[in-house]
Amino acid sequence: MNYCTHCGHLLNYEIPHGDDRPRHVCPSCGMIHYQNPKMVVGCIAESENRILLCRRSIDPAYGRWTIPAGYLENRETVEAGARREAREEARANLGELVPYRLFTIPHISQMYLIFRAKLLDDHFSAGEESLETRLFGQNEIPWDELAFRVVFASLKDFIRDREAGAFSFDIKEIPPEDGSSQPGSPDKISR
Amino acid sequence: MNYCTHCGHLLNYEIPHGDDRPRHVCPSCGMIHYQNPKMVVGCIAESENRILLCRRSIDPAYGRWTIPAGYLENRETVEAGARREAREEARANLGELVPYRLFTIPHISQMYLIFRAKLLDDHFSAGEESLETRLFGQNEIPWDELAFRVVFASLKDFIRDREAGAFSFDIKEIPPEDGSSQPGSPDKISR
Repeated sequence: MNYCTHCGHLLNYEIPHGDDRPRHVCPSCGMIHYQNPKMVVGCIAESENRILLCRRSIDPAYGRWTIPAGYLENRETVEAGARREAREEARANLGELVPYRLFTIPHISQMYLIFRAKLLDDHFSAGEESLETRLFGQNEIPWDELAFRVVFASLKDFIRDREAGAFSFDIKEIPPEDGSSQPGSPDKISR
Repeated sequence: MNYCTHCGHLLNYEIPHGDDRPRHVCPSCGMIHYQNPKMVVGCIAESENRILLCRRSIDPAYGRWTIPAGYLENRETVEAGARREAREEARANLGELVPYRLFTIPHISQMYLIFRAKLLDDHFSAGEESLETRLFGQNEIPWDELAFRVVFASLKDFIRDREAGAFSFDIKEIPPEDGSSQPGSPDKISR
């Protein structure tokens, strides 16, 4: 961030008066450019115990499998965002959305809100950001080909909870990677 | 948003190729300036069934009562953000944080994540953004002097659930105001 969005002046990076951390501040018009974490909304969608996954047609993680998810838009509820992403990425229609996980991922300043839902029908297909869409049975999940660690964590929790027959909402943190080779290593998602 | 943060050029407002809604796009360097909802994190903090509220020393809603809450910062977990806000606004230390409500507020592009917690001790006092801090018994809540509708909704739900002896996480929407006089009418919070 170099220039002020309001007046076009070059920005300083400094601690504003009364604040406790550096921000991008305009020395000309005084505007402070706050930057805050972004929310991704998505869904684990089931049809007869099989889970809908999408194979990504875009970077990062081109060719890897993910649940339908993407950035929440301004003026959108979290539920509307999750439904929109399911339509955009998988042309899928979701039933009732049940809150399942909130992942807080501080090292990339993101949150992932994951719902559970049933597919309303079996009419789904690849949207523009997907190469293909498919339902996976519990023993078919492509664990080594998942797009992101948060997808891996969501599906692991979901399958464990489904086997136990007990779902509950929880907040979990995805810490920075330690450098070892974990499945679905790319942290960032594109829009 | 007038100027590109990357190169300082005047921005266009147009639908980027492959997108479905207008964004601020730089015709010189091509940068797309996405804007997304912001997350506020806060806490309903109790001490022996009394609830900690802060009277705001800043606009909007100067002089009105709120729970400790504020914008989540980059590189911060949601729990760390809620603890930081309790320290900053009420010099208060929280025990275990239990997820309680996520309010989605599309007309101001905000979300509020509210935790429940016990105060670790009775050492609390007004921080820089508060005129005073106080514990309120159930029949003392200043309903007509609350800062925001989301605070009103959080406390109403909390007191009802506490009386019923059953808390559970839920996602709720705060719709736009209909113009009638509801307590705590200002929607926006300042930083």
